[in-house]
Amino acid sequence: MTLLDSLRNPDDLKRLPAEALPRLADEIREFLVTEVTRTGGHLGPNLGVVELTMALHRVFDSPRDPILFDTGHQSYVHKLFTGRQDFSKLRNRGGLSGYPSRAESEHDFIENSHASTVLSYADGLAKANAIQRRSDRSVVAVVGDGALTGGMAWEALNNIAAGPDRRVVIVVNDNGRSYSPTTGGLADHLASLRMTQGYEQALDLAKSALNRAPVVGQPLYEALHGLKKGLKDAIQPQMMFEDLGLKYLGPIDGHDEQAVEKALRRARGFGGPVIVHCLTQKGKGHAPAENHQEDQFHAIGAAKPAPKAPAEEPAPAPQKWTKVFSEEIVALGAERSDIVGITAAMLHPTGLAPFAEAYPDRCFDVGIAEQHATTSATGLAMGGLHPVIAVYATFLNRCFDQVLMDAALHGQGVTFCLDRSGVTGPDGASHHGMWDLSLLQVVPGLRLAVPRDAPRLREELREAVAVEDAPTALRYPTGAVAPEIEAVGRVGSMDVLRRATGGGHGEDLLLVAVGPMAQTCCEVADRMADQGIGVTVVDPRWVKPLDPALVDEAGRHRVVAVVEDNGRVGAVGDAVARTLRDAELDIPVRTFGIEQEFLHHAKRDDILAELGLSPQSLARKLTETVSRQDERQPSDEEPAGK
Amino acid sequence: MTLLDSLRNPDDLKRLPAEALPRLADEIREFLVTEVTRTGGHLGPNLGVVELTMALHRVFDSPRDPILFDTGHQSYVHKLFTGRQDFSKLRNRGGLSGYPSRAESEHDFIENSHASTVLSYADGLAKANAIQRRSDRSVVAVVGDGALTGGMAWEALNNIAAGPDRRVVIVVNDNGRSYSPTTGGLADHLASLRMTQGYEQALDLAKSALNRAPVVGQPLYEALHGLKKGLKDAIQPQMMFEDLGLKYLGPIDGHDEQAVEKALRRARGFGGPVIVHCLTQKGKGHAPAENHQEDQFHAIGAAKPAPKAPAEEPAPAPQKWTKVFSEEIVALGAERSDIVGITAAMLHPTGLAPFAEAYPDRCFDVGIAEQHATTSATGLAMGGLHPVIAVYATFLNRCFDQVLMDAALHGQGVTFCLDRSGVTGPDGASHHGMWDLSLLQVVPGLRLAVPRDAPRLREELREAVAVEDAPTALRYPTGAVAPEIEAVGRVGSMDVLRRATGGGHGEDLLLVAVGPMAQTCCEVADRMADQGIGVTVVDPRWVKPLDPALVDEAGRHRVVAVVEDNGRVGAVGDAVARTLRDAELDIPVRTFGIEQEFLHHAKRDDILAELGLSPQSLARKLTETVSRQDERQPSDEEPAGK
Repeated sequence: MTLLDSLRNPDDLKRLPAEALPRLADEIREFLVTEVTRTGGHLGPNLGVVELTMALHRVFDSPRDPILFDTGHQSYVHKLFTGRQDFSKLRNRGGLSGYPSRAESEHDFIENSHASTVLSYADGLAKANAIQRRSDRSVVAVVGDGALTGGMAWEALNNIAAGPDRRVVIVVNDNGRSYSPTTGGLADHLASLRMTQGYEQALDLAKSALNRAPVVGQPLYEALHGLKKGLKDAIQPQMMFEDLGLKYLGPIDGHDEQAVEKALRRARGFGGPVIVHCLTQKGKGHAPAENHQEDQFHAIGAAKPAPKAPAEEPAPAPQKWTKVFSEEIVALGAERSDIVGITAAMLHPTGLAPFAEAYPDRCFDVGIAEQHATTSATGLAMGGLHPVIAVYATFLNRCFDQVLMDAALHGQGVTFCLDRSGVTGPDGASHHGMWDLSLLQVVPGLRLAVPRDAPRLREELREAVAVEDAPTALRYPTGAVAPEIEAVGRVGSMDVLRRATGGGHGEDLLLVAVGPMAQTCCEVADRMADQGIGVTVVDPRWVKPLDPALVDEAGRHRVVAVVEDNGRVGAVGDAVARTLRDAELDIPVRTFGIEQEFLHHAKRDDILAELGLSPQSLARKLTETVSRQDERQPSDEEPAGK
Repeated sequence: MTLLDSLRNPDDLKRLPAEALPRLADEIREFLVTEVTRTGGHLGPNLGVVELTMALHRVFDSPRDPILFDTGHQSYVHKLFTGRQDFSKLRNRGGLSGYPSRAESEHDFIENSHASTVLSYADGLAKANAIQRRSDRSVVAVVGDGALTGGMAWEALNNIAAGPDRRVVIVVNDNGRSYSPTTGGLADHLASLRMTQGYEQALDLAKSALNRAPVVGQPLYEALHGLKKGLKDAIQPQMMFEDLGLKYLGPIDGHDEQAVEKALRRARGFGGPVIVHCLTQKGKGHAPAENHQEDQFHAIGAAKPAPKAPAEEPAPAPQKWTKVFSEEIVALGAERSDIVGITAAMLHPTGLAPFAEAYPDRCFDVGIAEQHATTSATGLAMGGLHPVIAVYATFLNRCFDQVLMDAALHGQGVTFCLDRSGVTGPDGASHHGMWDLSLLQVVPGLRLAVPRDAPRLREELREAVAVEDAPTALRYPTGAVAPEIEAVGRVGSMDVLRRATGGGHGEDLLLVAVGPMAQTCCEVADRMADQGIGVTVVDPRWVKPLDPALVDEAGRHRVVAVVEDNGRVGAVGDAVARTLRDAELDIPVRTFGIEQEFLHHAKRDDILAELGLSPQSLARKLTETVSRQDERQPSDEEPAGK
């Protein structure tokens, strides 16, 4: 039996002698590498917080002292200490979530994996302790250095510092990178690097930090790391925090468990807000991860059984949406010198990295700061350029006000490329990109396209960057591109993918296929044709504004249905229905999409099927709807409406 | 002819000798007091920036060097210098906007009056200059000290500092208050106040600052002002900025025009990002404003002709929505010790001040930080309390992600009270609260009420704070409460306000009245009854989730219509239509609300009438719709649908 096996709860961990901890750390790393390599998941971040998490659970009394993780993907070790050691179905249906989960454990608090939020939760929980006179409790917030570039973290620091008697322990888990460092010439900054006394205590780690290319253009990073632009010889990282009135301890070697314990005990005893600055190494203890240049195995896919070492030469993957975007934006950058790329700390995952390499002066990584990304882009557009912001669909939520009040109100040509839209899969509720088609419908003037396949992504991206007087957005899902579907005709700006032929009533159903649901809709049409029902399938290409030709086309059918990969509320289905009723075309409309609920983690196809978005399910429901029209009105009568 | 009359553009101002400027300042103050007292508007902030704006236009070359104003309400003086001296219809239809307006002048850039955005625009414009090698141009951003509590400002500072060669001049207009200071015992902090050398140069102003109660619990404020919690004897305000790598000049007496000019010239010559910290006094030079304790006449209403002095004893005003909320939340605070109030720098305007006075330990002003407000509230709820966030409806946009991913995903009882919802009037596009009913429809689990009158506001607020497992929201407009309308019946949880009686077809039209549109809907019903059309009016009270009884009720009518004071896209109209079609009740639905466009400034009633939301207009359109049904189907036939 391993030490790890013997741990059922944090008390078991507390009872282990300090001498046993290095062995436990080894066991945990072995466990993580084996298990996560098999299922896929956030390997690198968790390898980096083994000792830190041990120290947290040995010093604090979870859940009485809540331990809160920002973005939560570094909570695997925490799970191991809180009774969750079955990782066999990690991130799969019925298995453990890849993030903290309130349903899984009383030790978990925050399920939202959007960055920079944790300090605000901590502020609230600490205020609640103060109001209810639970003065002996601490609230612990673990936050990455990257997340401190998010404005919300600053809002929270400003407020936490305002409560000098509230026990908030802020652990800055500083691995020098959020997802990955942006590239750039930092040699001159490194030359002026000086270690403060604190840094010298963490010498080994700090030395290894020299071998990473730190984030260029991130003064926060530089302040945190004692780098400076030659203005001063040495900067103490605590100054920035102490200016805000926060006590600072560190920097601590985050892999020296006893040192971290000691710092946390001091912090706990202080009786007010304290920052504990820990230096850790992403991928620590697993050579392939440590040496991985791009992101130290930030998140890995499930591998074929090859424990302890990930597949080093993966089979050639099918073309991915991200890759198509990536290629096309590089091509556009060559054609147009006014195109500028912007990312919020997601240069590689969004596929913008090749653009940044090709045009380093025209690409900006603004940190985890979607709000700033959008408004800065608006400024760039006012200055005569055309910015393209590549961002995950779910993170667009974070800059809604800026899309609306800055880009749209000022009528500026800013293009948003929303990756990971719709059902994404194993990352759970806060990663599904199921909100953007609803939010963006609200924005006056904004134009919105949903490409159905790779050629359309290229084509619609070009149409988007041609718009100079309004923001535009494209959205596409994760993974491999959908099969190519050529149009059989065109109505206005809409592509006709299937044209109803004969059948029982000629043109029974108009099926509006939103983007990658085109394939499903064509299958639905084929199935219904077999039942003698005439179905026309159109891809509107631009779902906002809808082409007025849609109304005429709808008027030639008896039923209209919309299928989309987004929350049903306020999205394209609602827009189509509104457009028809505004035109006084009162025919039955049916709208299909994601039920407006928080989705759990599972595979994309499984989730879609469960949501009733399979061709079988859709064909069955729509056949019923069309048949019901037969009962209502004789087939030779004109459809209701104008 | 006055000096002011002689100014047609910034060049005229540049040509004036320095000796003439004090006289010009006096003329401008007299002009502002006279004009703004008559029309209403942001008097205090503009009186505070007279000399600052002079200096800006004398040093920089607008619009080549864009001068950008955060929240824009301090741009009146800027308007006077850029050819706009007719203030007779300020903030009224056909008159000058109360904010910068791109349609008005090439000197205006930012129309969004949401705070903390300006630095991001500046970052973008400066990047555009750099990319296009316009290295001689400067970008000037004027931002209040209060706006620096917004996280977005920090995101921008972090990015601006990353471009050491970009010419961005950040003027911090520090009047020590965003809208108004929060109250609290600051005596101990003041005792430890020390002036740095810089502060001593601005001695008179700094002394007067002692007489204002600075923001308690705002470490940023304290750092900015050299206050500290006894940890250090003296803090230099520049440290915080210089930690981020930004050059700092100041503090400057913002009413010493020549001193400001000198600082701006230095800043302009520096060739990289610079902060110029100016101390100003809101309401400067107008005794009634200077002495006004609450907010130095931040914004004043239009007065009866009483130039140079506002009405000191206003006639008793009608009951306002804000006041009703204010009274009820204080009452609830007495009944329930778990209720906590939160505001984002809007303690007085949202009516939360009396609650803060009554329960100082249970009320938090978090600064201009809606994101933090929401997530901190989620933490408070996790800690066993029930937070109530009072915020303007339009500012809810800024924390959409936090409402969704923090409060709702975690199923926490947080109540949002959205003031100034719907058409607000003279403040223009970014102040209309026309987005919330759409945004909140998207949020799973969230419950949303729209009270139609004062008794319902009290009642529904109580229902909201009784919900502990999901966020709730109430929204109500600005101004006087709508006339009280008693229900004549109840269907499920919906109030029936008018019941169709006889008429041509008995029950022709079901009119769903959203909140304060109830009065209008009842008038519509009365008008249509005169035409022999039977109209039922219901107020659903909670518009999300909709009561299933709505479907049954709709099924008894031939047409359903929804009237709301929100953007039409994705709001209650769309929700009603979706609910009916999901129930396969395919009857005509008509939805009325604000067209999804940015609205200009004008009076609320005028805008509603222009939008076709007057009883006359609605009655006419709905009569036509109902009549068209007569043509379609014989009156004795059952309506289509199940």
